Amino acid sequence: MERFRLVFSGSGGQGVITASIILAEAAVLYENMNAVQSQVYGPAARGGAARSDVLISERAIDFPKVTHPNVLVALTQAAYNAYTPIIRPGSLLITDTRFVKIQSKVDARQRELPLYDTVMEKIGNPIVFNICVLGALVALTEIVKPQSVIRVLSERVPVGSLEMNQKALELGLDLGRNAGSLKKE
Amino acid sequence: MERFRLVFSGSGGQGVITASIILAEAAVLYENMNAVQSQVYGPAARGGAARSDVLISERAIDFPKVTHPNVLVALTQAAYNAYTPIIRPGSLLITDTRFVKIQSKVDARQRELPLYDTVMEKIGNPIVFNICVLGALVALTEIVKPQSVIRVLSERVPVGSLEMNQKALELGLDLGRNAGSLKKE
Repeated sequence: MERFRLVFSGSGGQGVITASIILAEAAVLYENMNAVQSQVYGPAARGGAARSDVLISERAIDFPKVTHPNVLVALTQAAYNAYTPIIRPGSLLITDTRFVKIQSKVDARQRELPLYDTVMEKIGNPIVFNICVLGALVALTEIVKPQSVIRVLSERVPVGSLEMNQKALELGLDLGRNAGSLKKE
Repeated sequence: MERFRLVFSGSGGQGVITASIILAEAAVLYENMNAVQSQVYGPAARGGAARSDVLISERAIDFPKVTHPNVLVALTQAAYNAYTPIIRPGSLLITDTRFVKIQSKVDARQRELPLYDTVMEKIGNPIVFNICVLGALVALTEIVKPQSVIRVLSERVPVGSLEMNQKALELGLDLGRNAGSLKKE
């Protein structure tokens, strides 16, 4: 397995860090892998930007920061502009159609998905947008099984909101699957 | 200012990661510093151990992992045993009296505080134990102002539980202050 190097980026309040932690926990607790999750807060964070790094590997991980991701999730235009220059050629790039306009050609397998609009249409609550994004990410990368994410959600989210979180995950999984498997490319 | 290198350790469910993120956000958003917070998940995490690293500095931070902390919080015996060997001599070491028995002399400024018991006696809800710990940490290190932590709490915790979180923070601040300033040592 190639080492999974994810930069999950957006703005504060979009739940980027929480989604990253859920992914890392799913990989470690239920898939027997190692994971590191980190975020750097600095001048960018003061402007409302959020960037979370996740490394997942079957082997031990020493250095906890992603220099050049092979998976980039960008949920704002600022995040897209900031991080597309650092991705590895041929990386997976997931953006949300509402928040990001693809401006120039990037050497990546791009997936523009209507994640936010789907969450708002089907659930009507932006708080689970990040979980929908996580679903798409899991469908496209198959880095962990959806069931492993659901197990983490079951432990982390309040009982009353578990169903909503599961639904958001399913919406994201569907959008990711419908966007086409990466393995065929 | 010496660079602040914190290892915040305990078991899963004690809220170690959340407390670390709140501290990092307080430093960045309201004190104009830079911060990095990271956690490594691996075999130890599968056993229920949690370790979160926080670096805070007035300068930019490149490497996001703490090799040798100058502040160690250990909320379980396993965490205490695992991480006291890596602290710098003279570091601040905060432990909870209920969960950790000091076994051998460590070259550190040790503060054994009844954080958990105080939270249970005065509030009766273990969910804010981590915020009480954070209060003691802030009182002993003065790395950020209490008001900066309260501002982050105001944005992060549900309105209905803000008062409980503030009370837990105050209990921790009091325990930390009563344990004696580090500056006199």
